[in-house]
Amino acid sequence: MASLADIGVSAGFNLLSALIFLLAFAFLRIQPFNDRVYFPKWYLRGLRNSPMNMGAFVGKFVNLDFRSYLKFLNWMPDALKMPESDLIEHAGLDSVVYLRIYIIGLKIFVPVTFLALTILIPVNYTNNTLESLKVTFSKIDKLSISNIELGSSRFWAHIVMEYAFTFWTCYVLYKEYATVTSMRLQFLASEKRRPDQFTVLVRNVPPDPDESVGELVEHFFLVNHPDHYLTQQVVYNANNLAQLVEEKKKKQNWLDYYQLKYSRKQETRPTTKTGFLGLFGEKVDAIDYYVAEIEKLTKMIAEEKEKINQDPKSIVPAAFVSFKTRWGAAVCAQTQQTRNPTIWLTGWAPEPRDVYWPNLAIPYVNLSIRRLIISVSFFFLTFFFMIPIAFVQSLASLEGIGKSAPFLRPVIEMDFIKSVLQGFLPGIALKLFLIFLPAILMMMSKFEGFEAISALERRSASRYYIFNFVNVFLGSVIAGSAFEQLNIYLHSPPDKIFVTVGVAIPMKATFFITWIMVDGWAGVAGEILRLKPLIMYHLKNFFLVKTEKDREEAMDAGSIGFDTGEPQIQLYVLLGLVYAVVTPILLPFILVFFAFSYLVYRHQIINVYNQEYESAAAFWPDVHGRIIGAMVFSQLLLMGLLSTKKAASSTPFLIALPILTLWFHRFCKGRFEPAFKIYPLQEAMMKDTLERARDPNFNLKGYLQSAYIHPVFKNDDENNDEAMENKLDSDTVLVATKRGSRRHTPAPSRRSESPPKFMDI
Amino acid sequence: MASLADIGVSAGFNLLSALIFLLAFAFLRIQPFNDRVYFPKWYLRGLRNSPMNMGAFVGKFVNLDFRSYLKFLNWMPDALKMPESDLIEHAGLDSVVYLRIYIIGLKIFVPVTFLALTILIPVNYTNNTLESLKVTFSKIDKLSISNIELGSSRFWAHIVMEYAFTFWTCYVLYKEYATVTSMRLQFLASEKRRPDQFTVLVRNVPPDPDESVGELVEHFFLVNHPDHYLTQQVVYNANNLAQLVEEKKKKQNWLDYYQLKYSRKQETRPTTKTGFLGLFGEKVDAIDYYVAEIEKLTKMIAEEKEKINQDPKSIVPAAFVSFKTRWGAAVCAQTQQTRNPTIWLTGWAPEPRDVYWPNLAIPYVNLSIRRLIISVSFFFLTFFFMIPIAFVQSLASLEGIGKSAPFLRPVIEMDFIKSVLQGFLPGIALKLFLIFLPAILMMMSKFEGFEAISALERRSASRYYIFNFVNVFLGSVIAGSAFEQLNIYLHSPPDKIFVTVGVAIPMKATFFITWIMVDGWAGVAGEILRLKPLIMYHLKNFFLVKTEKDREEAMDAGSIGFDTGEPQIQLYVLLGLVYAVVTPILLPFILVFFAFSYLVYRHQIINVYNQEYESAAAFWPDVHGRIIGAMVFSQLLLMGLLSTKKAASSTPFLIALPILTLWFHRFCKGRFEPAFKIYPLQEAMMKDTLERARDPNFNLKGYLQSAYIHPVFKNDDENNDEAMENKLDSDTVLVATKRGSRRHTPAPSRRSESPPKFMDI
Repeated sequence: MASLADIGVSAGFNLLSALIFLLAFAFLRIQPFNDRVYFPKWYLRGLRNSPMNMGAFVGKFVNLDFRSYLKFLNWMPDALKMPESDLIEHAGLDSVVYLRIYIIGLKIFVPVTFLALTILIPVNYTNNTLESLKVTFSKIDKLSISNIELGSSRFWAHIVMEYAFTFWTCYVLYKEYATVTSMRLQFLASEKRRPDQFTVLVRNVPPDPDESVGELVEHFFLVNHPDHYLTQQVVYNANNLAQLVEEKKKKQNWLDYYQLKYSRKQETRPTTKTGFLGLFGEKVDAIDYYVAEIEKLTKMIAEEKEKINQDPKSIVPAAFVSFKTRWGAAVCAQTQQTRNPTIWLTGWAPEPRDVYWPNLAIPYVNLSIRRLIISVSFFFLTFFFMIPIAFVQSLASLEGIGKSAPFLRPVIEMDFIKSVLQGFLPGIALKLFLIFLPAILMMMSKFEGFEAISALERRSASRYYIFNFVNVFLGSVIAGSAFEQLNIYLHSPPDKIFVTVGVAIPMKATFFITWIMVDGWAGVAGEILRLKPLIMYHLKNFFLVKTEKDREEAMDAGSIGFDTGEPQIQLYVLLGLVYAVVTPILLPFILVFFAFSYLVYRHQIINVYNQEYESAAAFWPDVHGRIIGAMVFSQLLLMGLLSTKKAASSTPFLIALPILTLWFHRFCKGRFEPAFKIYPLQEAMMKDTLERARDPNFNLKGYLQSAYIHPVFKNDDENNDEAMENKLDSDTVLVATKRGSRRHTPAPSRRSESPPKFMDI
Repeated sequence: MASLADIGVSAGFNLLSALIFLLAFAFLRIQPFNDRVYFPKWYLRGLRNSPMNMGAFVGKFVNLDFRSYLKFLNWMPDALKMPESDLIEHAGLDSVVYLRIYIIGLKIFVPVTFLALTILIPVNYTNNTLESLKVTFSKIDKLSISNIELGSSRFWAHIVMEYAFTFWTCYVLYKEYATVTSMRLQFLASEKRRPDQFTVLVRNVPPDPDESVGELVEHFFLVNHPDHYLTQQVVYNANNLAQLVEEKKKKQNWLDYYQLKYSRKQETRPTTKTGFLGLFGEKVDAIDYYVAEIEKLTKMIAEEKEKINQDPKSIVPAAFVSFKTRWGAAVCAQTQQTRNPTIWLTGWAPEPRDVYWPNLAIPYVNLSIRRLIISVSFFFLTFFFMIPIAFVQSLASLEGIGKSAPFLRPVIEMDFIKSVLQGFLPGIALKLFLIFLPAILMMMSKFEGFEAISALERRSASRYYIFNFVNVFLGSVIAGSAFEQLNIYLHSPPDKIFVTVGVAIPMKATFFITWIMVDGWAGVAGEILRLKPLIMYHLKNFFLVKTEKDREEAMDAGSIGFDTGEPQIQLYVLLGLVYAVVTPILLPFILVFFAFSYLVYRHQIINVYNQEYESAAAFWPDVHGRIIGAMVFSQLLLMGLLSTKKAASSTPFLIALPILTLWFHRFCKGRFEPAFKIYPLQEAMMKDTLERARDPNFNLKGYLQSAYIHPVFKNDDENNDEAMENKLDSDTVLVATKRGSRRHTPAPSRRSESPPKFMDI
């Protein structure tokens, strides 16, 4: 068992590594040639120009102003300066509310830590149980609940504290839910007109032999919403086209690379091979080859567009229907249209950037089956993922390699390589799996058929949390694979499970403290350094970039990554709630994590991340629900733990807690969740009235006409496809779109650009 | 253990008693003086006149037509003759769909029985396991799964059959759900105009210092539904008034009784005592006393009405808001009105008869707390109800009586009385509790705050089913009180619970067969005889009835009683599904129950029961859900049972069944349940258009104006309260209501007439 001194050393080490990251960051960020790596958000918003265009030559690349090196922690107050309202304007509501998850962690745990340290630590420490038991123990154990003798009435302090913590957490949760709800409603009703305020996504349009999808949709809504219907846009199945465009872009990159190479070294024309990865096949002149390839693809793209244009089958049975008023859209989105609730499904259209196009065409029964398949697969993934990995590990052992690739035998039998491989190989399969896990979960969500990227990420986040909960948290507490755990759960009585886990909890405190420092502190400091984007940017910059536009494309702003970030925070909340009463000394470490990450992510959101979509904080009910789940779990664990401490008379007091907590959850669900699903009519009506008074002649139809065009038709800048756009707008007068504002519209999200591919995620 | 012969005897005995009930019924129903007991529905609909008004004197009371005695089973084909569409017209959709629950039982179990008897019985019977074990066993056991040796491959027959039964049941459930859904939608969209098609119930109207509730509601909906709002009706808190009216009615009954007594025996004027139950207190002239009392009450009622009229506090913060079109109402009912989802709550108004008035004023937080309290109480009621009963039983023992009432000691010490009491007393507390249980559950539902009687009954039915499931089904299988069972469940691993119950299942087959015959067969035959209403009617007829109108009031048609009837059927479905594979010989007994009850209840619905409300089959999702639950439970039990039979390799095959069944449930929920919650806009629009074309000048406002008046203002026939009705109609032109059709409008439901009182249920 680790002593306090050990933990001190570990903390010092991790603090040091975090400090080194921060220093490196402070140094790198003020170098002009890294400007696009550390401030991409400002470039994307068009508010910053490259500092490399001005000043002396050296000053273009290296910061020569030595004063700026002294203020290397400047970014911290800067990150806190921007007020919340500006931040919403700058980075969207999602980002701001995401930051509130860290805030909620602080709000919950600052008072909890204070109370726990001042009350529970003395209560625990002034016992001599561990000494009297004559077992080896550490200082940490002496501060924990383990130090209290069986049947002691001191346990009442812990029970009272658990009540206090529960009520405080519920209070904070309630307040936050109320705040986020009102922020969301304010945002939705904000001054700015947005296409999704007027638009409803209609899915599962039934087939009709006489009418096209577009006509059918138009007639249906003209009949059933006669006073409010404005216009509709059908959805084209452009998945093939998107793939071709993607391929063309790649080839274009290669062409750029070779052209740049040639321009730098005019004597030899670069060559390439036509086969796999440019490694095999015929040797050809690279520039000529890629020019020809791009021409071919351009032709194919034109053909594909023609096909989509002509073929009625390329229209999927879904449409974006727009209404004259927000009221009309709110009514349509919230009501059922026909007897059969599996056709003409209506719901709020996601924001244009947020639409996940490939999933718009899935019929109802199919969706239902997909959900079943994914649920079952996820169960197996969570509990049995070790089985294929163990299999791969056995293959990847030295003997396995020797057998399957005998020619490698002489190499792997060298002593040095052998020992490296033996230490390295068994872990690599697991490590690879864990790296790809978010991608696998995202694929599962995509297969399940959600139509918005935000929904995909929310679902992935839930799954990732469950996976972490089972395999990281429970897996660390009860040693053994998830599969063995499952066996334990199935074959123990329900109350015994909580006893088993509850008893193991205090013993794992030091492990989790170390883990918080490595994964939390150092991990977050690594995030701000952006090592991978830094390297990638400079590689691209060297090999591909010819123009300023290329340089813009070379930037990889990244995004918050809700699907992996939020589950991580939740794991810390869970640890905090579980250990608050049991081993309170863990709490300060969590506080440092929350405060530090808040700082770092606020900085990143202001300066780095590109907002992929705007869901108006639609994820908050999930965040709330997971904290509630963690609370209930911690209460049950405490019950299990105390039941072994001969404090059985406390059980009735503890059993009320999960019931009250679950009731509180239900109450909040009823009180706030509707605001995250629907849009109240009063708000819609107010906004409509205001707008009609202020801007009575606005051409709404023109504004909405091309809001929901598949991004592949929009982004294809090189071939401005008049034909396509003309077809889409054929039945209306087109209002001139302001190309000047193009810069301000955020880049399309990476997920919706192309069909789902594994490596693309 | 009972042998086949024992069961034969029991079956014969129960069949005989059922036959005796049926013969008695056949004899009694054709006597003219019982006409109002056995055909009240026809009187209520105004389609039948008393046969006692015509013919010879004796013929008025006794049926002298001997041919009619020969056709004593005539009612059976008669009950089946009325086609379903006529039955909907005659008794409402709820009744017709209620009968479909029996039909679904037949549809599921006829093929299941056939398959089980032809396949599983031979598979079971051709073994000699029980003989070789040299244990005592009965023929029943020989036909059951117990007769198959451990690890035999014959178990595959049972697994395949379980699959077949599951798929067949799901198929039937799907078909029925589809049929009931389309019946409901057809009914809702039917020709007939109904107030609830245009009306939305608004709850939790926020308080406003400047406006009355009525004004506030009007302004809110004029602003937010400007094109559709028609009118509104506020809800008066008339609970006190209803109580007074009820009291007056009782006094009137006594007055009638004494007047009748005096008119028969003119020499002495009847007297009564003013104290408790007329047993204590001053002796007074009965007729004068009651005349005075009624006068006093009439005055109090007038005052109370005046008070309601004047006092703004007598208006509760809820209102019935009517719209110009069904479309408008559908939109308002299905959308959220304001930011705060706990105020301005809108939902479809229940049918006027269905409204449960006392609950309309409960605010949201209050509701949420009530729900928590009731959930916890119901848990304790289910698992710990034996504790107070055991306590009462100990009090009600002979010693207890001797102690608390020493003067009774000489009586109870007589040998005969002692032995009777000893046999009788311990059971009486339990019996009384079980008789009052539905009333207790109904009180709980009322406290929970549902605003429709149909919702109250649905909730009570759910609870009654759970109670029966735990205490009747599980209580019979695992001997021991529910509290002891709870202990077992909490302290066994989840898989062991199903093993424990599953192993006990085959041993209890004979018990359940006997139970089906006593509770099912004889119970249903008793239902048709209507012994209690028969006696009550003749008593009232003799003591109270003066006029034909009094006689009409003396009829007690009763109602289906969804809250107790449906859980009973579900228990039979559960038994059938559990035993289908285990002891198939039980199935024919269940088939007889379903067929016989269908016949009896169809007869009763046609001739007897008064429809209390019309919820348009809103209960079907509950029925469907409970059958699914029973299926999953039976699958888990079979898994538990087979795991002890060393047929472990079958587990993976069986585990797929509950997963598939639950998925099927989710699928059905998505496919059909919306139709039970909401009303599709297309239907509303179609109906609106049709009506506008057919009847363009209909005064809808007048039609709806008084649809939702508290029944106490409507029924008070004696004092036609012009003042009240004038106040309610003050702001509109009143259309003459057709008093002639009054007879056709069903009597108001017994539950909504008066405030909630224990004995009133």
